[in-house]
Amino acid sequence: MQITSSLDEIRSIVKAAKKNNLLIGFVPTMGALHEGHLSLIRQARTENDTVVVSIFINPIQFGKNEDFAQYPRMFDTDCELLSKEGVNVVFNPKASEMYPDGFCTTVVPEHLEDKLCGKSRPGHFRGVATVVLKLFNLIQPDSAYFGQKDFQQTVVISRMAADLNLDVNIKVLPTVRDKEELALSSRNAYLSETEKKDARCLYQALIKAKDMVNAGENNAGEIKLEMEKVINNCKSARIDYLSIVNPETLEAVTEVRNGNVVALAVMIGKTRLIDNIILMVLIVCLITLA
Amino acid sequence: MQITSSLDEIRSIVKAAKKNNLLIGFVPTMGALHEGHLSLIRQARTENDTVVVSIFINPIQFGKNEDFAQYPRMFDTDCELLSKEGVNVVFNPKASEMYPDGFCTTVVPEHLEDKLCGKSRPGHFRGVATVVLKLFNLIQPDSAYFGQKDFQQTVVISRMAADLNLDVNIKVLPTVRDKEELALSSRNAYLSETEKKDARCLYQALIKAKDMVNAGENNAGEIKLEMEKVINNCKSARIDYLSIVNPETLEAVTEVRNGNVVALAVMIGKTRLIDNIILMVLIVCLITLA
Repeated sequence: MQITSSLDEIRSIVKAAKKNNLLIGFVPTMGALHEGHLSLIRQARTENDTVVVSIFINPIQFGKNEDFAQYPRMFDTDCELLSKEGVNVVFNPKASEMYPDGFCTTVVPEHLEDKLCGKSRPGHFRGVATVVLKLFNLIQPDSAYFGQKDFQQTVVISRMAADLNLDVNIKVLPTVRDKEELALSSRNAYLSETEKKDARCLYQALIKAKDMVNAGENNAGEIKLEMEKVINNCKSARIDYLSIVNPETLEAVTEVRNGNVVALAVMIGKTRLIDNIILMVLIVCLITLA
Repeated sequence: MQITSSLDEIRSIVKAAKKNNLLIGFVPTMGALHEGHLSLIRQARTENDTVVVSIFINPIQFGKNEDFAQYPRMFDTDCELLSKEGVNVVFNPKASEMYPDGFCTTVVPEHLEDKLCGKSRPGHFRGVATVVLKLFNLIQPDSAYFGQKDFQQTVVISRMAADLNLDVNIKVLPTVRDKEELALSSRNAYLSETEKKDARCLYQALIKAKDMVNAGENNAGEIKLEMEKVINNCKSARIDYLSIVNPETLEAVTEVRNGNVVALAVMIGKTRLIDNIILMVLIVCLITLA
């Protein structure tokens, strides 16, 4: 497994692979890897010749009062995991080389960046879009892999790929959960044992929505009211947002349709957690036999 | 010469060229070609195997009250010229395919977009940066060619290429002028004969700056005052801006240094013209012989 923090070296590695017609699969991460990341890497492994994983805690996607400084850093452990998964290249660039003096070009996902998580994290999604585009340009992947847990991120990246005519397949894989159905996240490391139990309320609220939809409810307002009750039952939880949206525009819907996404962000103590599920609305076809 | 408006076709043309290790040179244009464009194309022709020229009047770089509707369109004449120059591919995409419904990802050249021309053309440079990035992604050029006449554009594009880790050489070629030293521009077609004569004041003002600098003047304010006099001598001229700037940051300077750019935009009647020159400040070395 090659490990490089050099922009020139990653370019030359990629060029050599391209010259040999090797398919490149890319998984961008901020490190502190868990089974969610590994599921992306395993999928990339099966579909490509060369798998590149970036580990880069991207400063421009963190707000001033967010957890950039505290974000877990465990590069050596991460590399051990990646080596076991048969990853070919780990790319861990320096922030000073990704954002040298005078850097000023940003990718802005207008209309998508001010909704859901974007409301409480202004600038976050332009930071994400910008770094992902930079990494795409350096790594030139045929396919790139993202987790459904970061739903809004997947929408922003997919839209960016289409809008900027990027020649890359964006693949979104299911959220990986622990035994208690808590969505895996590097930020779960911030939770105390009690908080970890409380954090189950996110998924419980999503399941409440799913159950109501399955029972025939399609009024988004009613569903959200019941979800709020589930969250508010948990003392350490404070809702940031809770929304049922069109998965392309991220506009909130009033009437739930098949494929809408119910997404939420909840503070558990000082830790902000997110989760979402795609709602499947059963379509009953009545066939009248003539 | 292949002519295509299809995004899929340009991609497959480019992929075939790449597979054969052909160097691709790219000249983005809005058509209404003149000797300025042709100088770029000739340079691209000498340095590459395949030359691609785009003709696309990019709607998102025009303001609401600007000349998008009037901008000269002469596709057939343009193609005749391009064929004579040995261009391999003309790409003229449809606006509806470049900007389909839901398009929302923009490239924003922060700090660079609100200066010089950006002040009177809000949104112009993010429109330029966005379309150039899209075209780069479709055409994957090894080198792309731009004219010095559009100075701020060259700064925005060069910065974008560096900031977003694009693997393309940005080449900036000298401004081409007519016999009267008027910088060639497709917009010169809007000028009456009288206005065309008046338009010479732009270059005369630039030469005034050059002469003053050569005579030892380095106070930007003094130079600008004299330039204003030159322009204001011309009845149909109205200064939009006139500035001496650092060519990387576009910040106005007070003391002129080698490599600073003096740039201006002037309305001649209803037509907005721009021009600029790079100032060479002679550095006198005093060598004391011991």
